[in-house]
Amino acid sequence: MTTTQCPQFDAAFKKQFRELVAWRRDVRRFRVESVDRALLADLIALATRAPSVGFSQPWRFVSVESPARRAAIAENFASSNRMALEGYGGDRRMLYARLKLEGLARSPVHLAVFADDGVTAGAGLGRQTMPETIRYSVVAAVHTFWLAARCEGLGVGWVSILDPIAATSTLDVPATWSLVAYLCVGWPQEEHDDPELERLGWQAREPGASALLMR
Amino acid sequence: MTTTQCPQFDAAFKKQFRELVAWRRDVRRFRVESVDRALLADLIALATRAPSVGFSQPWRFVSVESPARRAAIAENFASSNRMALEGYGGDRRMLYARLKLEGLARSPVHLAVFADDGVTAGAGLGRQTMPETIRYSVVAAVHTFWLAARCEGLGVGWVSILDPIAATSTLDVPATWSLVAYLCVGWPQEEHDDPELERLGWQAREPGASALLMR
Repeated sequence: MTTTQCPQFDAAFKKQFRELVAWRRDVRRFRVESVDRALLADLIALATRAPSVGFSQPWRFVSVESPARRAAIAENFASSNRMALEGYGGDRRMLYARLKLEGLARSPVHLAVFADDGVTAGAGLGRQTMPETIRYSVVAAVHTFWLAARCEGLGVGWVSILDPIAATSTLDVPATWSLVAYLCVGWPQEEHDDPELERLGWQAREPGASALLMR
Repeated sequence: MTTTQCPQFDAAFKKQFRELVAWRRDVRRFRVESVDRALLADLIALATRAPSVGFSQPWRFVSVESPARRAAIAENFASSNRMALEGYGGDRRMLYARLKLEGLARSPVHLAVFADDGVTAGAGLGRQTMPETIRYSVVAAVHTFWLAARCEGLGVGWVSILDPIAATSTLDVPATWSLVAYLCVGWPQEEHDDPELERLGWQAREPGASALLMR
């Protein structure tokens, strides 16, 4: 393909892209309506256009539908979250206990996203010195999915308060797969352009977060 | 903020967003024109709207400008790439030797992106069982930067064929920072909607890459 066929992105698109980035949220409160399977498949297909090291395409997607497996994941979260709570004292502990950190019970779709550490595609290119780039490629796919879902009004919440080994075992996947993200997907109950952890006083936006060091 | 203020993304935007994802590329061939510092700062500021675990905002950006440091990074790449070449034989080896895998010499901007593993923001929330989510947050920022750059017609290439410990030492950053991505940024010489590794026969697109396993 040549330069002439390349799309140009105008000021209106760029403004909307910024809004998309600003209104993407970690969603933990979902409406009960289901998500169309074709829409989910379409978003996953778009996610596979994410960058991957050596074009290894190491992402693997699992829709978690069995009530028993969902219950095991919910128990995994509950147990991991109790341990996390133990690590806090005083006001922090009281605030932590009040936070809603996942939407596992209500979200119609549970999507587990794995990296295949044994992937042969790409023939190892680009990942000899930084093998973690396999998992980073999967993160780029997750983030693509997240933005594309948000375009459709669909909310995504990333649940990281899980024992990943136990979750992987619960989901009965090939031995070379490792869990990168466990996502709750569904229609959000509310919309915000600020993170809940900021709104509820857990963590402020860092004023120097875009600082650029010169070297 | 309430639902009523939330932007809606129409069909035209969604179509263009898909084009943005499809035409984002790993760029290794740059024109010589410089990149405006204000534009770079603006893209980095947008990147800090990426999701981060516990709102920890662990991304740290370093513009590598010193000729000596750039030369050390180029030598780091050359040495890592020679070792990678050693791992291939036959046709693969010949093809690997012909690939252009970075644009370090020509790209006007070198942007190293680190994760601060010692970040206190977020107070550890969400990363007790999966501490790698700190680095995953930085990947989401890199990917946001990449897409936003592409909106502006700016190309980004992620160089992962580096010894990350040596590169971190070269860049003289705080001890708790670890290298996630070393990016070449500049105006691309050519535009493509397919990866160079696919075009040159290193790796085909995987037809089953969007397969969804049910559990």
